[in-house]
Amino acid sequence: MKGFVTFEGCEGVGKSTQIRLLREYLEGEKKDFVLTREPGGSRLAEKIRAVILDAGNAEMCDPCEALLYAAARAQHLHEIIIPALKAGKLVICDRYTDSTYAYQGFAKGLGRAWIDELNRLSVGEYTPELTIFLDLDPTSAFARKGGRDEGDRLEMLGADFHKKVYQGYLLLAERDPERFVRVDASGSKQQTHEKVLTLLRARGLI
Amino acid sequence: MKGFVTFEGCEGVGKSTQIRLLREYLEGEKKDFVLTREPGGSRLAEKIRAVILDAGNAEMCDPCEALLYAAARAQHLHEIIIPALKAGKLVICDRYTDSTYAYQGFAKGLGRAWIDELNRLSVGEYTPELTIFLDLDPTSAFARKGGRDEGDRLEMLGADFHKKVYQGYLLLAERDPERFVRVDASGSKQQTHEKVLTLLRARGLI
Repeated sequence: MKGFVTFEGCEGVGKSTQIRLLREYLEGEKKDFVLTREPGGSRLAEKIRAVILDAGNAEMCDPCEALLYAAARAQHLHEIIIPALKAGKLVICDRYTDSTYAYQGFAKGLGRAWIDELNRLSVGEYTPELTIFLDLDPTSAFARKGGRDEGDRLEMLGADFHKKVYQGYLLLAERDPERFVRVDASGSKQQTHEKVLTLLRARGLI
Repeated sequence: MKGFVTFEGCEGVGKSTQIRLLREYLEGEKKDFVLTREPGGSRLAEKIRAVILDAGNAEMCDPCEALLYAAARAQHLHEIIIPALKAGKLVICDRYTDSTYAYQGFAKGLGRAWIDELNRLSVGEYTPELTIFLDLDPTSAFARKGGRDEGDRLEMLGADFHKKVYQGYLLLAERDPERFVRVDASGSKQQTHEKVLTLLRARGLI
């Protein structure tokens, strides 16, 4: 969908920082844009998000979780994203269907076909024009923050999970290279920011 | 799925009464069965149901609502229905995927293909062996309770909606006559109960 840009990336890659830098740039340029995020982004979507994240709901099965994310996304799309796109605004969304693919579909093992179908049901034609994938493998992200604790079973499990998430993202980059674009995030914040701006300019989005 | 029976029908058709009569019969026969209901049926599924039914969530869009029903169903299936079927029990569920088809797909207009796909995602192979459709058209149901109030705009709207739900159910009966069986519910409670028992016996379920 024209004017619709999403950001994706593994935990710790600097996604929030890059989105903040882009927001500051767009404000400086007086661009008409909407910045939003998933899951959540609307009052009701946030309520659904609270059910997903509530630690008291430990019995939640993976398909239930994925369907709740899809429900929150459908609401967020309906309330926030579609009206902004129809008003001709640039929409920048922090995470979208590709997160569901990488996290629930690939890392949690629900399967690519199942998630592709769920994503199609929840957003229909509203796929992003461009997805900026901040590309840094999870091992480097761990190294950046001083290495992982080898004695911490949960952190080790976490690292394996995030490697799978990364592999899921790489599959998306292979499958849809025009839309899902890898941006090298191994340099400084400012270097990555410049790469993001260059990409957005090349696509005529800013 | 063997041993899995669902009940469907329009509002006011006597579904709760028929399920109660069946429960009393099965208890009298010392059958090993589980009786459950949708939406809800488990702690977490009930929490999701509360979000769906909360009048404060008036901004909820139709796809969000259908996805929430599907999330609650996936959880209910995972926690209650699958374990009971695996233990060899007869499972009787008050409403299931056919309600989503008739209410959200047909009466609310989300479309049959969209709902078919959503139902496939949320339950996979766990389709009922038999669905008992208590068949009474909504006009008769209104007549039974003394006619509708012609001056009540909401009740009139409601009647149109419930006619569409009924049409949706009839399409299911046409499409899948072996599984989705119409049971005439225009007679007395006891007559309908006997028809339900006859059908269950014919299928070797009781």
